[in-house]
Amino acid sequence: MPAGLQDFLRATSARVEHTLKVALADHSPAETLLEAMNYAALGPGKRLRPALVYASASALAGYDILPKCDRAAAALECIHAYSLVHDDLPAMDDDDLRRGRPTCHIQFDEATAILAGDALQTQAFELLVAAPLDADLRLRLIGELAKASGARGMVAGQAVDLAAVDRALSLEELRRMHRLKTGALITASARIGAQIGGATIPQLDAITRYAEAIGLAFQVQDDILDVIADTRVLGKAQGADAARNKPTYVSLLGLEGARDKARELHEEASRALDRIAAGGAVDVQVLQQLADYVVARTH
Amino acid sequence: MPAGLQDFLRATSARVEHTLKVALADHSPAETLLEAMNYAALGPGKRLRPALVYASASALAGYDILPKCDRAAAALECIHAYSLVHDDLPAMDDDDLRRGRPTCHIQFDEATAILAGDALQTQAFELLVAAPLDADLRLRLIGELAKASGARGMVAGQAVDLAAVDRALSLEELRRMHRLKTGALITASARIGAQIGGATIPQLDAITRYAEAIGLAFQVQDDILDVIADTRVLGKAQGADAARNKPTYVSLLGLEGARDKARELHEEASRALDRIAAGGAVDVQVLQQLADYVVARTH
Repeated sequence: MPAGLQDFLRATSARVEHTLKVALADHSPAETLLEAMNYAALGPGKRLRPALVYASASALAGYDILPKCDRAAAALECIHAYSLVHDDLPAMDDDDLRRGRPTCHIQFDEATAILAGDALQTQAFELLVAAPLDADLRLRLIGELAKASGARGMVAGQAVDLAAVDRALSLEELRRMHRLKTGALITASARIGAQIGGATIPQLDAITRYAEAIGLAFQVQDDILDVIADTRVLGKAQGADAARNKPTYVSLLGLEGARDKARELHEEASRALDRIAAGGAVDVQVLQQLADYVVARTH
Repeated sequence: MPAGLQDFLRATSARVEHTLKVALADHSPAETLLEAMNYAALGPGKRLRPALVYASASALAGYDILPKCDRAAAALECIHAYSLVHDDLPAMDDDDLRRGRPTCHIQFDEATAILAGDALQTQAFELLVAAPLDADLRLRLIGELAKASGARGMVAGQAVDLAAVDRALSLEELRRMHRLKTGALITASARIGAQIGGATIPQLDAITRYAEAIGLAFQVQDDILDVIADTRVLGKAQGADAARNKPTYVSLLGLEGARDKARELHEEASRALDRIAAGGAVDVQVLQQLADYVVARTH
């Protein structure tokens, strides 16, 4: 990871973690619930979605925009964290380990994990309502987040994913599933950041293409890592998806084919950034480094 | 139920069901998910929360305000429906029967029920964003809904409720639990309706007292019915809560004590309505009939 990106990620992670800590401070009459929400939202993680909010906004409007992004970035992380907690449940993927730690229902119990996920989703909308942004913009962002995470976005992707166990998916079906399951929220992160940064319509369109490409690239790389990395590095059991008979890019394209696919998507993302940069007065360097990182990462 | 209230409930139920049907029309790539959401949100039910939205708004602003309430009313029903779906899960209350029908995870499966609940919560916020109301008002209502349903509202109540199984709760603890678990959303319904109806601050304060009283009365009556009604009328197994060793108003106050409590809360609600009516140019008749119904209902 280049030093510039590392600094950026360190700074934006600190911002989002501070925002989450304040939002999830223990004022609840249900202590264990808050503890489980903190465990799920503030554990180790890449904070990729918040980073995309900050990077997209600051590419267009400079670093002074970062404080305006805090609550939106934290909202994205809440939705992501809730989806992982519910995805790990016994009735869903039944995972005991996540990022090298016991999953939420193992650390607490199943009921607490269901409720913590539920409340993290609510928290996301509470954070966005309170963002220091114009009323119309806030409403637009709440609408974006809801659309990306609901029955026509992330949750639909999870439902399609569950239905795909032990079924042969075509490459097109696999792409569609991932576009919903992880792509929608990654794209929403970049779009929300861009709108906070005051994106024009062509800029918003280009950032959407960029985010769609790196969202899919992220998933392709996940499938590659699932096959080649060991459990210690990955924080989850190696080959877990393949063992569950879930279709992956590697099972459909082979390891080399999947690597080609990741490279192709990386180029697509870079081309979209070129279109934004052509507008002048923008700095897409961090966005480019994020795209590089997504396909080069080893965990 | 007086004829006037019956007509009102029939009309507002039809409005909210139409709004939900449109919102949950099958445009999702995940058919079963949408089916489960429809099953959960559009099954038989009292539609008490939507009715409170409509009744509070129209008490202050007349019946012409009803169309402005549709999406907010549907949002409240989505949150309520999602909470029932998750509450019924095996890891939570483990109920097979709800309103005389198989619960969502029995009708579909556990994973689908978890996801349908998740997406119904998201749908609530999507509906409110699109409500035909001023931007500032919409944001205020989204904030109200999020606060009432999250880690400091409904979900906190569910967590406290689960922790209370096999534990002796005091009357005060029981009241606090219900104020969160069902009270917060019932109060939010009335407050949201009142704000759509243009409530003044004293009116909003009075409607809040009214809703807190009937919310608690509703729960007391639930506990009474749990003991005296039979399964056919109630749509769930009789004595289910007592059998689970959950504290109830009847177990703490006795049957007569619980009935006194319901009457007392009913009077409190009526007094709050008198304060609104004293302002003139309002019609609290339906709100009064709703309060009467809550303590007189047999299922």
